[in-house]
Amino acid sequence: MTIKTIGIAGLGLMGGAVAMALRHAFADIRLLACDIDENALTAAETDAVIDEGFVDAKTMLPQCEMVFLCLNPSITLQFMAENMRVFAPKTLITDITGVKTAVVSFIEANLRADVDYVPGHPMAGSEKGGYFEARNCGFTGKNYILTPLKRNKPENLALMREIVRKMGFSRITETTPAEHDYAIAFTSQLCHVIAAALINCESDSGIIRFGGGSFEDLTRIALFNATQWTELFLENRKPLLARIAQFEASLDKIKDLIRNGDHSGLQIYLQTVRKRKEEQTALKTDDS
Amino acid sequence: MTIKTIGIAGLGLMGGAVAMALRHAFADIRLLACDIDENALTAAETDAVIDEGFVDAKTMLPQCEMVFLCLNPSITLQFMAENMRVFAPKTLITDITGVKTAVVSFIEANLRADVDYVPGHPMAGSEKGGYFEARNCGFTGKNYILTPLKRNKPENLALMREIVRKMGFSRITETTPAEHDYAIAFTSQLCHVIAAALINCESDSGIIRFGGGSFEDLTRIALFNATQWTELFLENRKPLLARIAQFEASLDKIKDLIRNGDHSGLQIYLQTVRKRKEEQTALKTDDS
Repeated sequence: MTIKTIGIAGLGLMGGAVAMALRHAFADIRLLACDIDENALTAAETDAVIDEGFVDAKTMLPQCEMVFLCLNPSITLQFMAENMRVFAPKTLITDITGVKTAVVSFIEANLRADVDYVPGHPMAGSEKGGYFEARNCGFTGKNYILTPLKRNKPENLALMREIVRKMGFSRITETTPAEHDYAIAFTSQLCHVIAAALINCESDSGIIRFGGGSFEDLTRIALFNATQWTELFLENRKPLLARIAQFEASLDKIKDLIRNGDHSGLQIYLQTVRKRKEEQTALKTDDS
Repeated sequence: MTIKTIGIAGLGLMGGAVAMALRHAFADIRLLACDIDENALTAAETDAVIDEGFVDAKTMLPQCEMVFLCLNPSITLQFMAENMRVFAPKTLITDITGVKTAVVSFIEANLRADVDYVPGHPMAGSEKGGYFEARNCGFTGKNYILTPLKRNKPENLALMREIVRKMGFSRITETTPAEHDYAIAFTSQLCHVIAAALINCESDSGIIRFGGGSFEDLTRIALFNATQWTELFLENRKPLLARIAQFEASLDKIKDLIRNGDHSGLQIYLQTVRKRKEEQTALKTDDS
């Protein structure tokens, strides 16, 4: 590792988890963090997760060779607009936002020529937010998506991959922001829409007396941060609406089989589903 | 415990898990099991989970004071039709089927006057089936539903509750078959329909490179047994179709908020969802 000092902007759930993973992977780097929440900074210093915390990003950024932006999409854009002049020359910047087209195009258009920005999205998280939940947000075996810019320096992209790998992520995929957003609209946002709709259609909380593992599985993520997910849904509105339409068509098919009492058709549908899920599970155990 | 000998009809995932829980809760009872699969019987004998296995139910049933029917709904009906004459007098019979109206009405209509039948549904299971998965099907803290008959002897109902509690289940709910089926159509079958529809709407298994925890959560149950779930869906068709319609209406609401870019409306919707999920979680930690 050629980098000696990494700064983390935003020490919430993801920023905290990134800090912990970096500390664990690279014992001798200097880790800095900035956040408006002094409690999180103090706790992370006490935990020896970071070396120094800053309330003012402008004091931290000039000291960093690399910066992880661990902020909501809208705050990421605001942060970059306010602090673009402050980064040290040659800084390698990355982010963790779950929507890429809007974020990447804005940052790329405003990027200084002497810094580099490799957009990223760690596929990890928790329905519970904040630094104090960060320990429970494991990265081991998880997916990481990168949507590199044409102007990225090859050595920075290689470094980014090395760092992500050492943080515990097992599969790193490079793609375009548009492809990322279309895929994520399915694997992440549609799942959150479904969980919300499922919770919303039964007002009697006593229903959980009849709950088994499947209801728990499907609604665990309903403890989401409403502000954050409102933003993610609306930032990725078009791909998400396309994915909802796909899901509705798929739901219509199985609904018709049930309504028609089509025993063999339903069984074939469910067998196909199971086979596809098995394929996915097999692919998951292949490391890339 | 007044009962000395319990028989289990069907030593698959649930039968195996019931046997293990009974063995653990009541060390000195005699536990018998019948199944067409001799490997499961032999394994359970070797594991000391049961005392004796039987391929022929007619040899086992006369020896039992209590019988757990751990079979699919259709096999449960077939088993009862074939073996009604064989049960010992005063046998306490219970079942574990996930649909109650059809099963209970058939068994009640054909029940001998000198035996008792307390219908039940343990809200536990696993997407993986068979005796050799039974160890992973924990009962601790799970829900159990009973749909007692008017003719049930109070002492048998009390005994049933005691046994279920000792097996590890923490909340026992008594209700009618119709209410059970309507509730379960939501908490169990609708969830399986949704997971199936979700898997079915993306044919590229490579999508899992973009998968995070939420996609994994929502599709874990898609490794279901297609034969079993075809039966459960069709046996409970009417309540399930009503629940699918509720879910579609709920999905329409959130879809419209997203389509209209209604930031504050969407945020309120998601906040309401989160609040309800929190209520459910709080209720779950209350023991009844």
